[in-house]
Amino acid sequence: MMMSRLVEPGDVDACHLVREYSALRLVDRLRKSRGGTSKLADWAERLDSTDLEAIVERAARVGARYVCPGDAEWPDRLDDLSSVSEATADRRGGVPFGLWVRGAVGLADCCNQSVAIVGARAATAYGEHVAGDLAAECGHNGHAVVSGGAYGIDAAAHRGALAGAGRSVAVVAGGIDRLYPAGNTRLLERLAEAGCIVAEAAPGCTPTRSRFLVRNRLIAALSLGVVVVEAALRSGSLNTARWARDLNRHVMGIPGPVTSSASAGVHELLRQPETVLVTDAGEVLEQVSPLGARPATVKCGTTSVRDGLDVRSRRVLDAVPVYDAASTRSIATTAGLQHSDVEPRLDELCRSGLVVRDDAGWRLASVL
Amino acid sequence: MMMSRLVEPGDVDACHLVREYSALRLVDRLRKSRGGTSKLADWAERLDSTDLEAIVERAARVGARYVCPGDAEWPDRLDDLSSVSEATADRRGGVPFGLWVRGAVGLADCCNQSVAIVGARAATAYGEHVAGDLAAECGHNGHAVVSGGAYGIDAAAHRGALAGAGRSVAVVAGGIDRLYPAGNTRLLERLAEAGCIVAEAAPGCTPTRSRFLVRNRLIAALSLGVVVVEAALRSGSLNTARWARDLNRHVMGIPGPVTSSASAGVHELLRQPETVLVTDAGEVLEQVSPLGARPATVKCGTTSVRDGLDVRSRRVLDAVPVYDAASTRSIATTAGLQHSDVEPRLDELCRSGLVVRDDAGWRLASVL
Repeated sequence: MMMSRLVEPGDVDACHLVREYSALRLVDRLRKSRGGTSKLADWAERLDSTDLEAIVERAARVGARYVCPGDAEWPDRLDDLSSVSEATADRRGGVPFGLWVRGAVGLADCCNQSVAIVGARAATAYGEHVAGDLAAECGHNGHAVVSGGAYGIDAAAHRGALAGAGRSVAVVAGGIDRLYPAGNTRLLERLAEAGCIVAEAAPGCTPTRSRFLVRNRLIAALSLGVVVVEAALRSGSLNTARWARDLNRHVMGIPGPVTSSASAGVHELLRQPETVLVTDAGEVLEQVSPLGARPATVKCGTTSVRDGLDVRSRRVLDAVPVYDAASTRSIATTAGLQHSDVEPRLDELCRSGLVVRDDAGWRLASVL
Repeated sequence: MMMSRLVEPGDVDACHLVREYSALRLVDRLRKSRGGTSKLADWAERLDSTDLEAIVERAARVGARYVCPGDAEWPDRLDDLSSVSEATADRRGGVPFGLWVRGAVGLADCCNQSVAIVGARAATAYGEHVAGDLAAECGHNGHAVVSGGAYGIDAAAHRGALAGAGRSVAVVAGGIDRLYPAGNTRLLERLAEAGCIVAEAAPGCTPTRSRFLVRNRLIAALSLGVVVVEAALRSGSLNTARWARDLNRHVMGIPGPVTSSASAGVHELLRQPETVLVTDAGEVLEQVSPLGARPATVKCGTTSVRDGLDVRSRRVLDAVPVYDAASTRSIATTAGLQHSDVEPRLDELCRSGLVVRDDAGWRLASVL
């Protein structure tokens, strides 16, 4: 718990050291060897101002617990993060050494079958509508929704999941007691009843930009796949999609008008070969389910009697006039098919109700 | 010319026989051996009603010429069709044995660099807008537009190409003297000045459904790639896209809202691995040009001074308060970075104009 305050979320070196030496011994070491220029010196910087009791008290006030690897509700899926770290100067990524969790349902249970739905804060009505529908369908089909806590797509996804009587998980960038933005507090608190709120940083921490970016890895890691609904070209959701790709999660995108800047980032993403275009929950669930377990309905539009005809019969049908009836001979000429073959086909088309025969010959059946 | 009336467009067997024996000898043979049940009997069906002089006269009236393989204006690209025929009962596909052409510019010249832009007749304002823009940009960049002659996307593409002072080619399903639909006659006739109108069926033929489908292969074959702008699930444009795929042409799709049924077919297409999502002419031209010859501008949004910062400096910046200035020590604690490293970084951020220093310490520079 102490370490979750001293160290920035996603510090790969800290994650490794805690695993190797335990957090207690590491904090002890920090107390003894202040200063220097190593990474330990960074971590020691917050020692004096960190009050473990205050942290625990803050967590207790909002009913949050600290979940660590090995705990029953620790989602094994998070361990996939051990192989991934962003190639940056301070090596971010890695398995968190613990997570602050609020919620009536265990985190592992929640994320057993889950889909991340992420996107722009500056979403359009279209994006929010689609995200909400998608989340509701996923929830209805027993898949939890994982997202951030922001306005726009995040909020629409959570609302949809709740509306679909599904579970929803919000991973926040700041402390679990500092829900951000304030306007979403009510919504996020409802998630604590029907799902989970998750934070890596210690209670009391502010949600900084850097923390949003490392937070994104948890959204990707906690889900089977990430769906980006709307994202401008520099949206943080694209960062979540990159984490998903690196974690071998399914990366999906919902297209929008090419004239909408809110979809421009999604379209860039969809131009990458690893991204799958999806248009509804059926296609999302097909993607994240075992092969063949949940095939999406193939979209094929309406079919008509005409579809069942072979090519020669279609040519005969094409040659039958709409109003003024024509003889079999004339229809054969129009169709460019031999007379002897056209006659039985006209009879068949008549039986199907597509053409009618009168004294003057054949014409199309009225569609009215 | 006679054969273009006797035989339905795209009859593979006819195409082969004409190539092998010449059309003259074939027509001769048909005259001698009527009846029977072979394919020859189909072709002979129209012999009596076919008046070659009338056909030639109809063509002359609209200033159309008959172009055959080997002619100077025959586009070599059409020969790719020899390897492709649709697996249907009457084997449609193949290289046409001739094409009726109207237009001031030679067909081969027109199609030297060309992009097909196809889509729904029942297009939305969005689709027509995008098709028009795309065609104008393609035209402006020296690429002819190839399409059908229908309302909706076809017409919008031709209008756009003309607006961009580009060339445009319309491949029609009926006879070259029977422009369809009548409402597009004016537009199509303008193409005869700035491009070409092309027909496979003989002058006088009506545009039947079957002819639309085989016509589609010519649109695909005459272009370097096919862009589908809007298409419902059963749109004929998807048939054009299949021809393009079989002909090893680039298959591209413009996405739209998933809530629009006019885009549902495009989205199905974009879920196929061979289809590339494109959002503008730059991406289309990149696709159809030799690798690296015309790279599309990478879309990356606006960049800021912040982007140039390394991760540690970003963390320092994140820790600087907006209003009430803070000391270096306090900022180091907030950032969780050692004091000795934070000081020079704050100086640097100050020089970049991102933070300011006053008596009380550091705060963010006003963005106003």
